Amino acid sequence: MKFNLEATDPKSKARAGVIKTDHGDIATPIFMPVGTAGSVKAVHQRELTYDVKAQIILGNTYHLYLRPGLDILERAGGLHKFNGWSKPILTDSGGYQVFSLAENRKLTEEGAVFKSHIDGSKHLFSPEGVMDIQRIIGADIIMAFDECPPYPCTHDYARNSMELTHRWLKRCIQRFDTTEGKYGYSQALFPIVQGSVFKDLRRQSAEFVASCDREGNAIGGLSVGEPVEDMYEMTDMVTDILPADKPRYLMGVGTPANILEGIALGVDMFDCVMPTRNARNGMLFTSEGIMNMRNEKWKDDFSPIDPHINSYVSSFYSKAYLRHLVISKEILAAQIASIHNLSFYLWLVTQAREHIIAGDFAVWKNQMVEKVSRRL
Amino acid sequence: MKFNLEATDPKSKARAGVIKTDHGDIATPIFMPVGTAGSVKAVHQRELTYDVKAQIILGNTYHLYLRPGLDILERAGGLHKFNGWSKPILTDSGGYQVFSLAENRKLTEEGAVFKSHIDGSKHLFSPEGVMDIQRIIGADIIMAFDECPPYPCTHDYARNSMELTHRWLKRCIQRFDTTEGKYGYSQALFPIVQGSVFKDLRRQSAEFVASCDREGNAIGGLSVGEPVEDMYEMTDMVTDILPADKPRYLMGVGTPANILEGIALGVDMFDCVMPTRNARNGMLFTSEGIMNMRNEKWKDDFSPIDPHINSYVSSFYSKAYLRHLVISKEILAAQIASIHNLSFYLWLVTQAREHIIAGDFAVWKNQMVEKVSRRL
Ligand SMILES: [Zn+2]
Ligand SMILES: [Zn+2]
Repeated sequence: MKFNLEATDPKSKARAGVIKTDHGDIATPIFMPVGTAGSVKAVHQRELTYDVKAQIILGNTYHLYLRPGLDILERAGGLHKFNGWSKPILTDSGGYQVFSLAENRKLTEEGAVFKSHIDGSKHLFSPEGVMDIQRIIGADIIMAFDECPPYPCTHDYARNSMELTHRWLKRCIQRFDTTEGKYGYSQALFPIVQGSVFKDLRRQSAEFVASCDREGNAIGGLSVGEPVEDMYEMTDMVTDILPADKPRYLMGVGTPANILEGIALGVDMFDCVMPTRNARNGMLFTSEGIMNMRNEKWKDDFSPIDPHINSYVSSFYSKAYLRHLVISKEILAAQIASIHNLSFYLWLVTQAREHIIAGDFAVWKNQMVEKVSRRL
Repeated sequence: MKFNLEATDPKSKARAGVIKTDHGDIATPIFMPVGTAGSVKAVHQRELTYDVKAQIILGNTYHLYLRPGLDILERAGGLHKFNGWSKPILTDSGGYQVFSLAENRKLTEEGAVFKSHIDGSKHLFSPEGVMDIQRIIGADIIMAFDECPPYPCTHDYARNSMELTHRWLKRCIQRFDTTEGKYGYSQALFPIVQGSVFKDLRRQSAEFVASCDREGNAIGGLSVGEPVEDMYEMTDMVTDILPADKPRYLMGVGTPANILEGIALGVDMFDCVMPTRNARNGMLFTSEGIMNMRNEKWKDDFSPIDPHINSYVSSFYSKAYLRHLVISKEILAAQIASIHNLSFYLWLVTQAREHIIAGDFAVWKNQMVEKVSRRL
């Protein structure tokens, strides 16, 4: 993996770059659609490529490990071959899902023991094991195994958790650096900065992560319920410490406004379930603002969903038709809304990139944050 | 609407023809995907056109009348404009749904009074009203308002019901012939043969329907639980009576084998929810037979779903991946399976048409019935 920094905004920390992987290039800043169980919900792979114009998608290690399981994934030749997505894939480490979905979970120095939410079977995720699992899944970018502390938590809890995450990171690196990819292409390991909303811990964690000198770095443990100002403050501090010549990934963020602010703070990569999850609830993000499609006001609005977005669904289907499908609980509603929202997110980061390169990102960003946050 | 009969099989009653409508031509025999509430479930309009290669779809009058309602449909300029499907549409009369879905329904000479299954509101469907409703929906082919007797029923019940259906048909014709389409294109009214599984009634009904001399004719009240031999026997008798120069529509039928046998009996048009409903339950119809995707045997079968079917999903996705999506309850499973099953149904009728034109339909049909009925 290589990262070329191509432009930096004069009035913010925003950057435009290109991440080069064996599965193709990723132009940054980038949003990565979440494909939890190897499928971006309600979206065909063809639509991801040609409508959404996704450049990289996420897979969830916890879900993929339980189903279809490593045996199937390895025999398929990895996740790319299994699901037919031939561009880059990033997998999380599974730690977050163990603590949000699994049952009877228990954390020790060794790792996390848990019972599957599907069949109750017992499993251990350790730093070494999670490296091996992501090697088998075959992600282009592999995340270190970490603990994501809940919000709020005490300074003591956050410090202990961060220190455990750092010890785990050393074990992840040790394992990763003594193993190889299974399918002939290279994989990169990203460590994760933790430290909750405590400045001293975030600084310490960012310095430790930076010192590991990996191919990219991530900021975890944000967008978990803290005030948005804290999220921005922590991000701002951390991006000052993380090396400029490596991509920076702000995990699990966020709204269109969060992403624009994150870009302004020097973040290059984002992921979030919001565009797809909210789509399934009838909430649309558009270039003009946010629409709740259940709202009666759309029932006779026969204009296209959002003609500014260059995707089939956004210009083909009308607001009135989409509202009818949402109200009638038709599957097609989730399909249209998911493709549209993802297309909008990808459009937004592409626009951001163009404005960074053009040198007028900061002004554009402030107008855009207001526009995309409006309720229509 | 015009019907050109192009070829007749020498060894069966199978026919190939073309129905010409103001929204384009329909090559028969044809299968019509069901788009209950204005959407063929889990399938984009673009996929219906280019993957499934559907030539006409169905809409359900009962559903569309209740939601989005006639006001919205009329202001949209009809269902074609509302849902973006610009090829022909056929609507049923709503009678069947009133008796299967609505509450507190009551049948009188005037029509059927019922309460909406959605909000409990009270409505009357009369022959005249149902003509007006389908005029507003804007279907290219409009179905007469009929009563579909349950199976089994007594000869008395079936005779009374058939006679009511015939009286209603006269009222439908009277209303239809004194009104006009709302959107500038022409609409055709198809009467429906009833009579349950009683030969004398079926003959009487077919003769009455034939005497009405409409642009096409339908056979209703079959595939409602009767033995398949009865269905074929009734169909065979009725197609002998219905005029050869008008298209014949066997309503609500059926499995791939049912459709092939129906074609051999001189039927030109079919519809059924089976390909889409079974798809949502993980059952696939393929050119090699029937697959239950929940079956463990597919878990490591990385071959394409059905490479003989010329649709994106059938060759792009593997059986193992689809099985994983079905087991994981991913929406994409319903999408892939629905597109595949419909593509298979359209492939099947297209193949039938080619063999009718080539003159070897009967032999091909017998082989194919066996093949498509196999459980893999
Ligand atoms: Zn998120
Ligand atoms: Zn059926």
